[in-house]
Amino acid sequence: MAQLFKQMTIAGVGLIGGSIAMIARREGLAGRVVGLGRTQANLDVALERGMLDAATRDPAEAARGADLLMLAAPILTMRATLERMLPYLPPHAVVTDVGSVKGWVVRELEPILAPGMAMVAAHPVAGKETVGAGAADAELFRGRRVIITPSAKSTADALERVEAIWRAAGARVERMDPDLHDAILARASHLPQILASALGAALAEERVGGMLAAEFGASGLRDMTRLAGSSWEMWRDIFITNRVAIIAALHLFGSVVEEFQDLIEAGDIAALEQLFNRGRTIRGKLK
Amino acid sequence: MAQLFKQMTIAGVGLIGGSIAMIARREGLAGRVVGLGRTQANLDVALERGMLDAATRDPAEAARGADLLMLAAPILTMRATLERMLPYLPPHAVVTDVGSVKGWVVRELEPILAPGMAMVAAHPVAGKETVGAGAADAELFRGRRVIITPSAKSTADALERVEAIWRAAGARVERMDPDLHDAILARASHLPQILASALGAALAEERVGGMLAAEFGASGLRDMTRLAGSSWEMWRDIFITNRVAIIAALHLFGSVVEEFQDLIEAGDIAALEQLFNRGRTIRGKLK
Repeated sequence: MAQLFKQMTIAGVGLIGGSIAMIARREGLAGRVVGLGRTQANLDVALERGMLDAATRDPAEAARGADLLMLAAPILTMRATLERMLPYLPPHAVVTDVGSVKGWVVRELEPILAPGMAMVAAHPVAGKETVGAGAADAELFRGRRVIITPSAKSTADALERVEAIWRAAGARVERMDPDLHDAILARASHLPQILASALGAALAEERVGGMLAAEFGASGLRDMTRLAGSSWEMWRDIFITNRVAIIAALHLFGSVVEEFQDLIEAGDIAALEQLFNRGRTIRGKLK
Repeated sequence: MAQLFKQMTIAGVGLIGGSIAMIARREGLAGRVVGLGRTQANLDVALERGMLDAATRDPAEAARGADLLMLAAPILTMRATLERMLPYLPPHAVVTDVGSVKGWVVRELEPILAPGMAMVAAHPVAGKETVGAGAADAELFRGRRVIITPSAKSTADALERVEAIWRAAGARVERMDPDLHDAILARASHLPQILASALGAALAEERVGGMLAAEFGASGLRDMTRLAGSSWEMWRDIFITNRVAIIAALHLFGSVVEEFQDLIEAGDIAALEQLFNRGRTIRGKLK
């Protein structure tokens, strides 16, 4: 693969950022791969694993020479990180990210870019339950979906080069409007997370006759609460930055669960069967 | 293991009933194991697999000589099956079952037993996604919980012998009040099922900008909708026979999900973090 950038600086060398660093070096996507981190310990892991050409905790140092800046830290930290780096970035730098919410990212970051810079917001729909550079994996994105959300400052050239990174990672790249992305992910990802966390919270201390009800669950309860173990830091930012779409998704779910409740109370078996079987059809629609 | 019964008749030679039949023969729990079924094809599978000494579709024939009758068919069919068998059962027969709801089973079946008969309701908390005698497995209950719910006609002798069956299956046997069982399982099992089915129904046809939102889900959505593929026949009976406890469980969940929604709308991050982290503690409480 031809070199796409002279220097790729990745702000946040965690699971996602670290995996991209590994891929960039393996595929020769950039002349140099630089990691910006908050803790030296994590940067040391990345250096030991040969994921980076250089590592620093100084935003100015990380910015110098970076014709690609990839923001791979929690969404709410992105603007402050970018502001600290902006004075030192090359005038035609491309800024991209890997956040799970896209409308907010575009609206917060795009207006502060210098005139010659380009913005290409992206969301790799991939993840593991582990975090940090130690968990990074050059195969993390193979066959996974990466959604690119073009915006006002997405030049054709910048789009092409950022998409080339993800294709080199083995991902399926597609383009989508940022707000459409957020509405879809609110339903397919943020809603399931809230349901798992709410079920976990409802049952965490729920005792009946002195016994903890959750202890009597089988594999079904385990499936339904696996997501409840997710990282608060990541979800905090999603809850804040995608609030409107999440509330809409909760209303959608609420009306269906209320329908279930009404039909069970009424003992309306025919309608309940229809609803139950409608639920079952989801299994054939998951990619 | 010493022989516990002269003849064990199992009404419903499916996953659960068939597995018990295999265990009864392997462990010598009964002199004879007889299967009562609705379809000859499934009984033939059980006979071919050597799970039964005899198979029949005739309730009278199945009842004759059965000092243990195990009802292993859907809950709502149990009473009619028992009524057809009652005139032919030995006067001191023990009746047991494997239904997922226990208060209803005790209240429906116990009053119609002949005076010398005993009742021991039971719920093996185990299962697979497969059904029928072909899926039966003599190891299905090993290490799993079996809840025995003693009632007015549970004699000490009958309790002891039915519990001995489950111990021979390798299960962890415990006793509980039938209604307490139903309240606990409504929370730990029936609630997660409804949430999975409701999420599946909410997203089955949910399109945003022409795209099916569910197609953008990752492993989390898959986890959260796995239960939606469950058998309607089994759940129909649970929804009908455990209605009151299920509605209470839905109210419990509803109040927590509403709390989530209010906190997200208000952007109350401190309270949201507490609630999210309360949800996470469930992971350590699952057995």
